[in-house]
Amino acid sequence: MAGKDFKVTPWEVSGEVDYDRIIKDFGIQKIDEVLLNRIKKYTKDIHYTLRRKIFFAHRDFNLLLDKYEKGEKFFLYTGRAPSGMVHLGHLVPWMFTKWLQDKFNCDLWFQFPDEEKFLFKEKLTLEDTEKYLKENMLDVIALGFDPKKTKFLIDTLHAKLLYKQAVRVAKKITFSTVKATFGFGGETNIGAIFYTAMQAVPAFLPSVLTGRNIPCLVPLGFDQDPHFRISRDVIVKLGYYNPAIIHCRFMPSLQGPGKMSASIVESGIYTTDDPKTVEMKIKKHAFSGGQPTIEEHRKKGGNPDIDSCYQILNYLEPDDKKVTKIYNDYKSGKLLTGKLKEITIEFINKFLKEHQKKREQARKLVDKYIYKD
Amino acid sequence: MAGKDFKVTPWEVSGEVDYDRIIKDFGIQKIDEVLLNRIKKYTKDIHYTLRRKIFFAHRDFNLLLDKYEKGEKFFLYTGRAPSGMVHLGHLVPWMFTKWLQDKFNCDLWFQFPDEEKFLFKEKLTLEDTEKYLKENMLDVIALGFDPKKTKFLIDTLHAKLLYKQAVRVAKKITFSTVKATFGFGGETNIGAIFYTAMQAVPAFLPSVLTGRNIPCLVPLGFDQDPHFRISRDVIVKLGYYNPAIIHCRFMPSLQGPGKMSASIVESGIYTTDDPKTVEMKIKKHAFSGGQPTIEEHRKKGGNPDIDSCYQILNYLEPDDKKVTKIYNDYKSGKLLTGKLKEITIEFINKFLKEHQKKREQARKLVDKYIYKD
Repeated sequence: MAGKDFKVTPWEVSGEVDYDRIIKDFGIQKIDEVLLNRIKKYTKDIHYTLRRKIFFAHRDFNLLLDKYEKGEKFFLYTGRAPSGMVHLGHLVPWMFTKWLQDKFNCDLWFQFPDEEKFLFKEKLTLEDTEKYLKENMLDVIALGFDPKKTKFLIDTLHAKLLYKQAVRVAKKITFSTVKATFGFGGETNIGAIFYTAMQAVPAFLPSVLTGRNIPCLVPLGFDQDPHFRISRDVIVKLGYYNPAIIHCRFMPSLQGPGKMSASIVESGIYTTDDPKTVEMKIKKHAFSGGQPTIEEHRKKGGNPDIDSCYQILNYLEPDDKKVTKIYNDYKSGKLLTGKLKEITIEFINKFLKEHQKKREQARKLVDKYIYKD
Repeated sequence: MAGKDFKVTPWEVSGEVDYDRIIKDFGIQKIDEVLLNRIKKYTKDIHYTLRRKIFFAHRDFNLLLDKYEKGEKFFLYTGRAPSGMVHLGHLVPWMFTKWLQDKFNCDLWFQFPDEEKFLFKEKLTLEDTEKYLKENMLDVIALGFDPKKTKFLIDTLHAKLLYKQAVRVAKKITFSTVKATFGFGGETNIGAIFYTAMQAVPAFLPSVLTGRNIPCLVPLGFDQDPHFRISRDVIVKLGYYNPAIIHCRFMPSLQGPGKMSASIVESGIYTTDDPKTVEMKIKKHAFSGGQPTIEEHRKKGGNPDIDSCYQILNYLEPDDKKVTKIYNDYKSGKLLTGKLKEITIEFINKFLKEHQKKREQARKLVDKYIYKD
């Protein structure tokens, strides 16, 4: 779909996303206080990404909780299509997923569709995606998912498990449907056309494997919703529960409003960036909501809502008090852009130091996470 | 493609096929005496299906022999999409393939795309195709392929091996191409659209597995040619040899001209039919080229070219003398339709007795043939 100033497909997001428009056009529900309170009944606290409406919308989360109340445990399904290194924005929905795993003590199936971006990006090779797959798995593991409850599915590696189920899905999806949903045409390759069926499978695979129907919750970047808009009906037709979906906003680009993209180097901070690089990127590229001069800033105040540094902190710093103070101080003009950048550089480098340590330790753990079929 | 009175796609062949038209429209070469003599240099004798132009056309068989002369051994690739029981017509190209394996002492990769017909036939389930797969494998094994040199690939079972290679192929095939080739449209499901990529893989898989380029020869029913018309160019783009193709006509239906179809019970004789069933089918359903009365037949003679019994013998009886005598006697009116039917029933039942014995013995051998990846 495309708005006046933005475009959203699972392979391309550009411009400034109008999230109210997304909710309306996608036909998804806003996460409201009633739902948050319902979640809180089970989780005691509420993850900051929910409080801050970073996870902003859902499909059938209520129905999932109905089942949960009746004693039906659910599993989580999310994923990552390797096409580059992981940046800070990618981590946000995964950290939330980890919180869900801990709070609901549930299995997570994490799909790495290593063919997806190969099919959609002309110059990307399978050697590239394999290289990124190996790197990306480290970032996921570094977040501390329970290895006993987390199963990585790699499309080419687990194709024996996935392809048979994907053809069951594919039989029920016509070209007209994917054409209307993704804007495919005559020039689209036949692997790209088929791909949505592969992405549907993990939402019901545990039910296939166990022979009993298990509810599924899919935390995802909202741009992935179109896949499920198609496949949810199909999954029901195959006899499984309709997966519930919960939608995450994108961390804005360093250059200002718009998704932080892994394919534009300047637009984001990679999890492997060293402190000097982080400093350079923030100082050189971070879009500022500040005023042209210190005097003007002190007088009129800055605009944290469009400031990349504030946005990064808002997406990654769990402490509401700290974030609110920065918001208020920046808005009032008390906090200057240079100081905000310093705070942000320090925050990111501390965050990445810890992440990179765990990321290195993860090298030995990969095998524990890959599903054994 | 469709002619005035016939239609050919890999999933449907109807009407009386005009083979000259096929050669012209497919852009394939007739197998001529020069090529037959070239083959004979290596095989000493010539298989009856070549002598009788049952294998009637090819793509690049000459180039394959050029390579063979330079010491490059080739492998064979053929297949069977399970959607029903095997009938006599199916056996013909496989018997020829077995002859090629023996004469050229080469590997055969035999693909069972157990998802194909599921994707193309609305009512067929994966349970159905699995059942037919098991039955169909017995017929192939019964023909005596060398278990050391024959590898069965089952699409859902070997998807780990096939899917990754299929996406390499799929990336280079657009929807426009499959639309033009197969007549696909908006109503076509996305699995059917992708499928041709899966069928392409075995033509270069041995090259992938060994890391060296190995020439490939594909004996097939001519209706499967469109898959390769698309994929041959792609296989070359991926860096492998262009597979050579050799095309087989269809054994006509019992009801007269037209392909013997496994989905119309009366149209063919299954390899599992018992002698009584064979007798009934031939007596009741076999289209006759004879005259309305014995007197007229004696006087004017019959027409073996449209007679189903003669055609069955022509496709299955290797002895030229026997077949020629029957042809001449029937044409002259010396051989009556009733007697021709008796000869045919006896021939088929003897043939099937032997086949069914080997088919039963095959049950213990299946595991030897399935490729271990």
